Amino acid sequence: MSAEFDLIRKYFQQPAPAEMLGVGDDCALFPVPVGQVVAVSTDMLVEGIHFFPDVEPFLLGHKALAVNLSDLAAMGAEPVGCVLGLSLPRVDANWLDGFSRGFLELAREYDCPLLGGDTTRGPKVCLSVTVFGAVPAGQALRRDAGRAGDDIWVSGTLGGADLALQMLQGGHTQEAWRLPGLRGALERPVPQVALGRQLRGIANAAIDISDGLLQDLGHILIASASAAQLDLQALPAHPGLSGMDDAVVLDAMLGGGDVYELCFTASAAQREQVQSAASAAGVSVTRIGMLLAGEPGTLQDGRGLPLHAARAGFDHFQGQ
Amino acid sequence: MSAEFDLIRKYFQQPAPAEMLGVGDDCALFPVPVGQVVAVSTDMLVEGIHFFPDVEPFLLGHKALAVNLSDLAAMGAEPVGCVLGLSLPRVDANWLDGFSRGFLELAREYDCPLLGGDTTRGPKVCLSVTVFGAVPAGQALRRDAGRAGDDIWVSGTLGGADLALQMLQGGHTQEAWRLPGLRGALERPVPQVALGRQLRGIANAAIDISDGLLQDLGHILIASASAAQLDLQALPAHPGLSGMDDAVVLDAMLGGGDVYELCFTASAAQREQVQSAASAAGVSVTRIGMLLAGEPGTLQDGRGLPLHAARAGFDHFQGQ
Repeated sequence: MSAEFDLIRKYFQQPAPAEMLGVGDDCALFPVPVGQVVAVSTDMLVEGIHFFPDVEPFLLGHKALAVNLSDLAAMGAEPVGCVLGLSLPRVDANWLDGFSRGFLELAREYDCPLLGGDTTRGPKVCLSVTVFGAVPAGQALRRDAGRAGDDIWVSGTLGGADLALQMLQGGHTQEAWRLPGLRGALERPVPQVALGRQLRGIANAAIDISDGLLQDLGHILIASASAAQLDLQALPAHPGLSGMDDAVVLDAMLGGGDVYELCFTASAAQREQVQSAASAAGVSVTRIGMLLAGEPGTLQDGRGLPLHAARAGFDHFQGQ
Repeated sequence: MSAEFDLIRKYFQQPAPAEMLGVGDDCALFPVPVGQVVAVSTDMLVEGIHFFPDVEPFLLGHKALAVNLSDLAAMGAEPVGCVLGLSLPRVDANWLDGFSRGFLELAREYDCPLLGGDTTRGPKVCLSVTVFGAVPAGQALRRDAGRAGDDIWVSGTLGGADLALQMLQGGHTQEAWRLPGLRGALERPVPQVALGRQLRGIANAAIDISDGLLQDLGHILIASASAAQLDLQALPAHPGLSGMDDAVVLDAMLGGGDVYELCFTASAAQREQVQSAASAAGVSVTRIGMLLAGEPGTLQDGRGLPLHAARAGFDHFQGQ
């Protein structure tokens, strides 16, 4: 048996749950409950683009799965399983041990077993994670389901991951003492799967904030053919940013990516239900604005002044 | 809207079939027929490892999907859809045009729509394709379902892809006139999806030959706790190899990868049904040996002499 197969087996092979077939055949197999549809999301993460070459492998394993679970959360889907493609410059047992622990710990926590994968040599670390979930037919939280008049909500807090990243890149040196309180937001994002599930039948449109609030909300606006008004004073800042310069914090909250909280819309008649859903999921939610009939994709602040996505989120082919 | 999204939209966005949700939300959605399970396979392909940097992008797009459809075929699953992760050093419209045409043409032919993906910058071209299929519960062709006494069959012919690759790498210069007749086997593999479907309920174990007959049959033997006897004279050589040195052809048939024909086992009582299934699928099949009770994973030739996988298939972390 080859070194490649030994490698996969040692670090990644997990017993598949009953009724599933995991690593070790041409395909993995999994059932889907009657009346549900499959939700699938895929992300590719490349060394030097999405993570630092010296990132702690445990944190990379965690985050690679977390960002995909976050996409399931944004559809209101339950995790079912995942597959992993892994290209590595060399076989490094320490790296594989850390990475696989970070990945598989989160997979267990979210009941999302690793069902298959492909491991190969390549010049840089390149990861491809594909997750599968299940959601009752017709109940998925789609981007195009927002309606004028809907409240706009966001879960958790904003800005923490972005300022942690800025500090790790050498910015805000006077504020570096805040980094220990912020980097968890960047390195250990928590996919809001329970909230997404609770919001089925309550929320209209939903998205997870990966590229920044303005850019991701913009996707809802375009898909739902809506405009929006945001109450900038209502935006929930990460507690680790308390006392920082307002403009810096606002920029991080509006433009900072890597957040993995949910931004969603719901009818104003659903406010109590939204709060109950958040309580049931154990997370906070904040009402930050409303959808308007207007030029699709346009945003204004509480005074009616136009808001531009000055920092247009994270574009892998621009600004680098 | 960013260049990244424009790029995806221009080349890859396809209207999703009815009842599905495709590119442009947090997740793609697809239904699964009642009584069927989802089959999933993923492959990662890296420039310089799995394909030459100057490969024709149309052929790369074709092959990237074909090798995954072949995994569905080997489970007896029907294609449902696929997702694509793509890391590129730069935005090259010609490359994207060719690649997307090769990929999407095959996707249409096999009714396997592209439902989502992720595009990013990276130092080399790196592709991750994940395909989804559906197969009636309990009818998947698994590697562990072979039984002592089963016939061993192979579809199509062997050796063509391997000798094409050897010639492209500068080997067998005296025989280079054969290359035009062989390279289709390497560059345009045909996934045996119809055969896999026809073999449900007839074949026991199945695998697609990606790493070489001996190595892939070896996976069936280990999973099915069997040994095997192969009739080397029966192996179906690619017609473009006619008249070549016997030892060269045999080595290519036993050890050459990138074949994407099916190797499967079936009870001797099913010989007529196997032939009928092959006819219905429009492909040839050849009986090449039988499974034996014996030391799992061991192979012998028709005279009972041990066969070793001298060239142990394609190992991404050895021999390079």
